[in-house]
Amino acid sequence: MTTKDDFEARCPSFQAAIELVGRRWNGAILMAAQEGARRYSEFLAAVPGISDRVLAQRLRELDAAEVLVREVQPTTPVQITYTLTQRGKELALAVQPLVAWGDRWLGRGTDNDG
Amino acid sequence: MTTKDDFEARCPSFQAAIELVGRRWNGAILMAAQEGARRYSEFLAAVPGISDRVLAQRLRELDAAEVLVREVQPTTPVQITYTLTQRGKELALAVQPLVAWGDRWLGRGTDNDG
Repeated sequence: MTTKDDFEARCPSFQAAIELVGRRWNGAILMAAQEGARRYSEFLAAVPGISDRVLAQRLRELDAAEVLVREVQPTTPVQITYTLTQRGKELALAVQPLVAWGDRWLGRGTDNDG
Repeated sequence: MTTKDDFEARCPSFQAAIELVGRRWNGAILMAAQEGARRYSEFLAAVPGISDRVLAQRLRELDAAEVLVREVQPTTPVQITYTLTQRGKELALAVQPLVAWGDRWLGRGTDNDG
Protein backbone atom coordinates (compact mmCIF):
# COMPACT_ATOMS: atom_id res chain seq x y z
CA MET A 1 0.00 0.00 0.00
CA THR A 2 1.05 3.56 -0.60
CA THR A 3 1.98 5.32 2.60
CA LYS A 4 -0.08 8.07 4.15
CA ASP A 5 2.78 10.48 3.49
CA ASP A 6 2.43 9.93 -0.23
CA PHE A 7 -1.25 10.76 -0.12
CA GLU A 8 -0.76 13.79 2.07
CA ALA A 9 1.99 15.15 -0.12
CA ARG A 10 0.10 14.50 -3.32
CA CYS A 11 -3.37 15.56 -2.34
CA PRO A 12 -2.97 19.35 -2.58
CA SER A 13 -1.06 19.27 -5.85
CA PHE A 14 -3.55 16.81 -7.34
CA GLN A 15 -6.45 19.01 -6.25
CA ALA A 16 -4.73 22.05 -7.76
CA ALA A 17 -4.17 20.17 -11.02
CA ILE A 18 -7.78 19.04 -11.12
CA GLU A 19 -9.03 22.54 -10.44
CA LEU A 20 -6.88 23.93 -13.22
CA VAL A 21 -8.01 21.49 -15.88
CA GLY A 22 -11.53 21.21 -14.49
CA ARG A 23 -12.27 24.89 -14.72
CA ARG A 24 -14.81 25.26 -17.51
CA TRP A 25 -13.16 25.61 -20.97
CA ASN A 26 -9.62 25.01 -19.80
CA GLY A 27 -9.58 21.46 -21.12
CA ALA A 28 -10.75 22.64 -24.54
CA ILE A 29 -8.28 25.57 -24.55
CA LEU A 30 -5.43 23.19 -23.72
CA MET A 31 -6.47 20.83 -26.51
CA ALA A 32 -6.73 23.73 -28.96
CA ALA A 33 -3.26 24.96 -28.00
CA GLN A 34 -1.87 21.48 -28.39
CA GLU A 35 -3.40 21.23 -31.83
CA GLY A 36 -1.94 24.43 -33.13
CA ALA A 37 -3.96 27.41 -31.92
CA ARG A 38 -1.68 30.36 -31.17
CA ARG A 39 -3.64 33.55 -31.72
CA TYR A 40 -6.66 34.72 -29.81
CA SER A 41 -8.85 34.40 -32.90
CA GLU A 42 -7.69 30.82 -33.38
CA PHE A 43 -8.67 29.88 -29.85
CA LEU A 44 -12.01 31.59 -30.31
CA ALA A 45 -12.61 29.56 -33.46
CA ALA A 46 -11.40 26.31 -31.92
CA VAL A 47 -13.37 26.41 -28.69
CA PRO A 48 -17.06 26.43 -29.53
CA GLY A 49 -19.38 28.35 -27.29
CA ILE A 50 -16.78 30.30 -25.34
CA SER A 51 -17.41 34.04 -25.11
CA ASP A 52 -14.86 36.68 -25.94
CA ARG A 53 -14.65 37.87 -22.37
CA VAL A 54 -14.28 34.40 -20.85
CA LEU A 55 -11.62 33.36 -23.36
CA ALA A 56 -9.56 36.46 -22.54
CA GLN A 57 -9.90 35.71 -18.84
CA ARG A 58 -8.93 32.03 -19.22
CA LEU A 59 -5.90 32.87 -21.33
CA ARG A 60 -4.76 35.28 -18.63
CA GLU A 61 -5.28 32.64 -15.95
CA LEU A 62 -3.40 29.98 -17.91
CA ASP A 63 -0.59 32.46 -18.50
CA ALA A 64 -0.49 33.18 -14.75
CA ALA A 65 -0.41 29.44 -14.07
CA GLU A 66 2.56 29.16 -16.45
CA VAL A 67 0.68 26.74 -18.65
CA LEU A 68 0.60 29.12 -21.59
CA VAL A 69 3.01 31.92 -22.28
CA ARG A 70 1.74 35.15 -23.78
CA GLU A 71 4.12 36.78 -26.21
CA VAL A 72 3.95 39.96 -28.21
CA GLN A 73 5.29 39.37 -31.69
CA PRO A 74 7.08 42.43 -33.13
CA THR A 75 5.03 42.51 -36.30
CA THR A 76 2.98 45.41 -37.70
CA PRO A 77 0.44 45.40 -36.26
CA VAL A 78 1.78 43.55 -33.23
CA GLN A 79 0.43 40.07 -32.80
CA ILE A 80 -0.21 38.39 -29.47
CA THR A 81 0.41 34.64 -29.30
CA TYR A 82 -0.21 32.11 -26.57
CA THR A 83 1.89 28.98 -26.67
CA LEU A 84 2.20 26.03 -24.33
CA THR A 85 5.11 26.03 -21.90
CA GLN A 86 6.83 22.75 -21.07
CA ARG A 87 4.52 22.54 -18.05
CA GLY A 88 1.55 23.16 -20.33
CA LYS A 89 2.63 20.58 -22.89
CA GLU A 90 2.93 17.98 -20.18
CA LEU A 91 -0.43 18.96 -18.74
CA ALA A 92 -2.12 18.62 -22.12
CA LEU A 93 -0.67 15.11 -22.42
CA ALA A 94 -1.56 14.22 -18.83
CA VAL A 95 -5.19 15.14 -19.43
CA GLN A 96 -5.60 12.95 -22.52
CA PRO A 97 -6.24 9.66 -20.68
CA LEU A 98 -8.99 11.29 -18.64
CA VAL A 99 -10.56 12.72 -21.80
CA ALA A 100 -10.41 9.25 -23.33
CA TRP A 101 -11.91 7.69 -20.19
CA GLY A 102 -14.80 10.17 -20.23
CA ASP A 103 -15.32 9.47 -23.91
CA ARG A 104 -15.39 5.76 -23.39
CA TRP A 105 -17.40 5.51 -20.18
CA LEU A 106 -19.52 8.63 -20.06
CA GLY A 107 -19.68 9.70 -23.70
CA ARG A 108 -22.20 9.12 -26.41
CA GLY A 109 -20.91 5.80 -27.60
CA THR A 110 -20.73 4.42 -24.08
CA ASP A 111 -19.34 0.93 -24.27
CA ASN A 112 -20.50 -0.40 -20.99
CA ASP A 113 -18.89 -3.73 -20.31
CA GLY A 114 -17.41 -3.20 -16.87
CA MET B 1 -7.11 21.04 -35.79
CA THR B 2 -9.73 19.03 -33.98
CA THR B 3 -13.21 19.83 -35.18
CA LYS B 4 -15.75 21.68 -33.11
CA ASP B 5 -17.86 18.53 -33.06
CA ASP B 6 -15.13 16.69 -31.22
CA PHE B 7 -14.98 19.34 -28.55
CA GLU B 8 -18.72 19.56 -28.20
CA ALA B 9 -19.09 15.83 -27.89
CA ARG B 10 -16.23 15.49 -25.43
CA CYS B 11 -16.80 18.47 -23.23
CA PRO B 12 -19.67 17.13 -21.08
CA SER B 13 -18.09 13.73 -20.54
CA PHE B 14 -14.74 15.30 -19.73
CA GLN B 15 -16.41 17.66 -17.25
CA ALA B 16 -18.22 14.74 -15.65
CA ALA B 17 -14.96 12.79 -15.39
CA ILE B 18 -13.19 15.77 -13.84
CA GLU B 19 -16.00 16.30 -11.35
CA LEU B 20 -15.88 12.67 -10.34
CA VAL B 21 -12.15 12.53 -9.71
CA GLY B 22 -11.95 16.12 -8.52
CA ARG B 23 -14.44 15.66 -5.75
CA ARG B 24 -12.47 15.84 -2.51
CA TRP B 25 -11.04 12.44 -1.46
CA ASN B 26 -12.10 10.57 -4.56
CA GLY B 27 -8.60 10.60 -6.03
CA ALA B 28 -7.18 9.18 -2.81
CA ILE B 29 -9.98 6.59 -2.52
CA LEU B 30 -9.32 5.46 -6.09
CA MET B 31 -5.61 5.16 -5.41
CA ALA B 32 -6.27 3.22 -2.20
CA ALA B 33 -8.59 0.83 -4.06
CA GLN B 34 -6.02 0.37 -6.78
CA GLU B 35 -3.39 -0.44 -4.20
CA GLY B 36 -5.40 -3.09 -2.45
CA ALA B 37 -7.93 -1.53 -0.09
CA ARG B 38 -11.16 -3.53 -0.09
CA ARG B 39 -12.80 -3.14 3.29
CA TYR B 40 -14.15 0.02 4.81
CA SER B 41 -11.53 -0.04 7.57
CA GLU B 42 -8.78 -0.36 4.98
CA PHE B 43 -9.97 2.72 3.12
CA LEU B 44 -10.23 4.59 6.40
CA ALA B 45 -6.63 3.67 7.22
CA ALA B 46 -5.36 4.42 3.71
CA VAL B 47 -6.93 7.84 3.24
CA PRO B 48 -5.59 10.18 5.89
CA GLY B 49 -7.87 12.85 7.25
CA ILE B 50 -11.13 11.53 5.84
CA SER B 51 -13.98 11.25 8.33
CA ASP B 52 -16.08 8.18 8.83
CA ARG B 53 -19.19 9.85 7.52
CA VAL B 54 -17.56 11.29 4.42
CA LEU B 55 -15.87 8.00 3.54
CA ALA B 56 -19.20 6.18 3.73
CA GLN B 57 -20.78 8.82 1.51
CA ARG B 58 -17.97 8.74 -1.07
CA LEU B 59 -18.04 4.94 -1.24
CA ARG B 60 -21.78 5.12 -1.91
CA GLU B 61 -21.25 7.73 -4.62
CA LEU B 62 -18.48 5.74 -6.29
CA ASP B 63 -20.67 2.66 -6.18
CA ALA B 64 -23.51 4.65 -7.80
CA ALA B 65 -21.06 5.89 -10.46
CA GLU B 66 -20.12 2.25 -11.14
CA VAL B 67 -16.50 2.95 -10.30
CA LEU B 68 -16.54 0.70 -7.25
CA VAL B 69 -18.82 -2.23 -6.64
CA ARG B 70 -20.08 -2.91 -3.15
CA GLU B 71 -20.40 -6.56 -2.32
CA VAL B 72 -21.58 -8.39 0.76
CA GLN B 73 -19.32 -11.35 1.45
CA PRO B 74 -21.19 -14.31 2.98
CA THR B 75 -18.87 -14.63 5.94
CA THR B 76 -19.77 -14.58 9.62
CA PRO B 77 -20.02 -11.76 10.39
CA VAL B 78 -20.77 -10.56 6.88
CA GLN B 79 -18.06 -8.45 5.36
CA ILE B 80 -18.65 -5.58 2.96
CA THR B 81 -16.05 -5.05 0.26
CA TYR B 82 -15.63 -2.35 -2.33
CA THR B 83 -13.67 -3.28 -5.42
CA LEU B 84 -12.90 -1.41 -8.62
CA THR B 85 -15.04 -2.20 -11.65
CA GLN B 86 -13.44 -2.24 -15.08
CA ARG B 87 -14.56 1.36 -15.42
CA GLY B 88 -12.96 2.15 -12.07
CA LYS B 89 -9.70 0.39 -12.91
CA GLU B 90 -9.41 2.40 -16.09
CA LEU B 91 -10.26 5.61 -14.24
CA ALA B 92 -7.57 4.96 -11.64
CA LEU B 93 -5.06 4.50 -14.47
CA ALA B 94 -6.32 7.54 -16.37
CA VAL B 95 -5.81 9.73 -13.32
CA GLN B 96 -2.19 8.71 -12.75
CA PRO B 97 -0.62 11.08 -15.32
CA LEU B 98 -2.45 14.02 -13.77
CA VAL B 99 -1.29 12.99 -10.30
CA ALA B 100 2.26 12.78 -11.65
CA TRP B 101 1.92 16.17 -13.34
CA GLY B 102 0.71 17.79 -10.11
CA ASP B 103 3.58 16.15 -8.26
CA ARG B 104 6.14 17.38 -10.72
CA TRP B 105 4.88 20.89 -11.35
CA LEU B 106 2.89 21.85 -8.29
CA GLY B 107 4.29 19.55 -5.64
CA ARG B 108 6.96 20.00 -3.02
CA GLY B 109 9.92 19.09 -5.17
CA THR B 110 8.81 21.37 -7.97
CA ASP B 111 11.27 21.06 -10.81
CA ASN B 112 10.56 24.23 -12.63
CA ASP B 113 12.28 24.23 -15.98
CA GLY B 114 9.44 25.04 -18.34
